[in-house]
Amino acid sequence: MDVAIIAFDGFTDIDVFLPWDLLNRVDVRPWKVAILARTPQVTSVAGLTIPTHGGLALAAEARAVLVASGVGLRAALQDPAFIDALPLDPARQLIGSMCSGALALAHKGLLAGKRATTYPTQRARLAAMGVEVVEEPFVREGNIATAAGCLAALDLCGWMIEALAGAAQREMVLRSVQPVGRGLAFDDTQALPARIYAPAT
Amino acid sequence: MDVAIIAFDGFTDIDVFLPWDLLNRVDVRPWKVAILARTPQVTSVAGLTIPTHGGLALAAEARAVLVASGVGLRAALQDPAFIDALPLDPARQLIGSMCSGALALAHKGLLAGKRATTYPTQRARLAAMGVEVVEEPFVREGNIATAAGCLAALDLCGWMIEALAGAAQREMVLRSVQPVGRGLAFDDTQALPARIYAPAT
Repeated sequence: MDVAIIAFDGFTDIDVFLPWDLLNRVDVRPWKVAILARTPQVTSVAGLTIPTHGGLALAAEARAVLVASGVGLRAALQDPAFIDALPLDPARQLIGSMCSGALALAHKGLLAGKRATTYPTQRARLAAMGVEVVEEPFVREGNIATAAGCLAALDLCGWMIEALAGAAQREMVLRSVQPVGRGLAFDDTQALPARIYAPAT
Repeated sequence: MDVAIIAFDGFTDIDVFLPWDLLNRVDVRPWKVAILARTPQVTSVAGLTIPTHGGLALAAEARAVLVASGVGLRAALQDPAFIDALPLDPARQLIGSMCSGALALAHKGLLAGKRATTYPTQRARLAAMGVEVVEEPFVREGNIATAAGCLAALDLCGWMIEALAGAAQREMVLRSVQPVGRGLAFDDTQALPARIYAPAT
C-alpha cells in the first residue's frame, strides 16, 4: 500500500475525497491508495456513507498515512479502538494530516514542541497539546506534515506524491485539477493522468 | 430539493464530491442536496462505490441540477435510460456541468450555438456538437453554466449558492475551503459553515 487515508464517522467529506482523488491520479504502477477506518463503512458529516478498504492496522503497511478531519474526530480520539489501533511511524512512513487531523498526530505524540497547522476551529485545542500552531496552509517537519484549509490538500498530497512517485507525477496531478484557462490549458491533453481520463479498462 | 448532482458509473471522484461538499456547507434551512443516478449506487473511476439518493427523475424537483463528469459519461449518453430520463429545464432551473458533463447538456440540446467550456480531453467532441468551446474555467449563459477543471467547481457551486441562498452564503462557503493563511484566517472561526464544523446533532 502506498498511501492510507484514515477516516471515521463524521469525517469532513472533502478532506477524505480530495486526497483520495488526487492520490489516485498518480500514474505509476503498482500504486495503491486505501481508505482505512475502525469500521467497514463510515459516514461523512454531510451524510454520505462509503465502504472502507480495511482496518486501521493496515496503515502499518503504508508508505504514507494521511489522517483526515471532521467533527467526528474528537469522539474517535477518545476511543481506544481508534487511537490506540492507529499505527503511525514517522521513522519509516510519511505522516500527514488535514485540518483537525493534526489532533490525532498530537495525540500520538508526534507534534510535541513542533510547528503545525490546523483548521481555525481547532487552533486552541491543538496549542493546548504543546504544539506550536502557525497560520500556514502546509507545515512540514521532516517526515511529518500538517495541512489546513481543505484546498491545502494539494500541498499535502503534492508532498506525498513527489516523495513517493517523483516531481513529474506531482506536477501532472496538481495541474490536472486546475481550472481550465487558470492553470490547465486545452493543449495539456498529453500530460493528464491516464488512470482517470483514459483508463485501460 | 435544492441541488441535484447527477452521477453515473465511472464518474470522476472529485467532480461529484467537491460539489457535494461545497453545496452541503450552505447554512440556510431547509436546504437539500442529493446525488441522483440511474442506479441505487454508482462507482467512481477511482473505484469508490457510493449510495445515491434517488433516481434521475427526481432532478425535475430540484432548483438546480449539476451534471458531473467522468469517463463513464460517454456510455451513459448512449443509454436511453440515462439521457432520456434526465430532466433538465433551464426555463425554471439552474443547469450546470463539470468538465465532460457539458456533453450531457449538449446532448439535451441546451448548448446549441452557445459558449461553453469542458475538460481538455473533451474539447473536440463538444465542438463537434455545435458548441462554441472556449478555454475558460466557468462560462455562464443565462440559467446554464459550464465549468471545467476540477477546482472550477468553486465557480460553478458559488454561482448556484449565490443564486439560491445569497451572496453571503457563497462567500462563507468558498472561504471555508481555502488554505489557512491563503484565503482562510485563524480569526475566521465566527464565519464558518455550522452545518459542517459545529453540527447541532
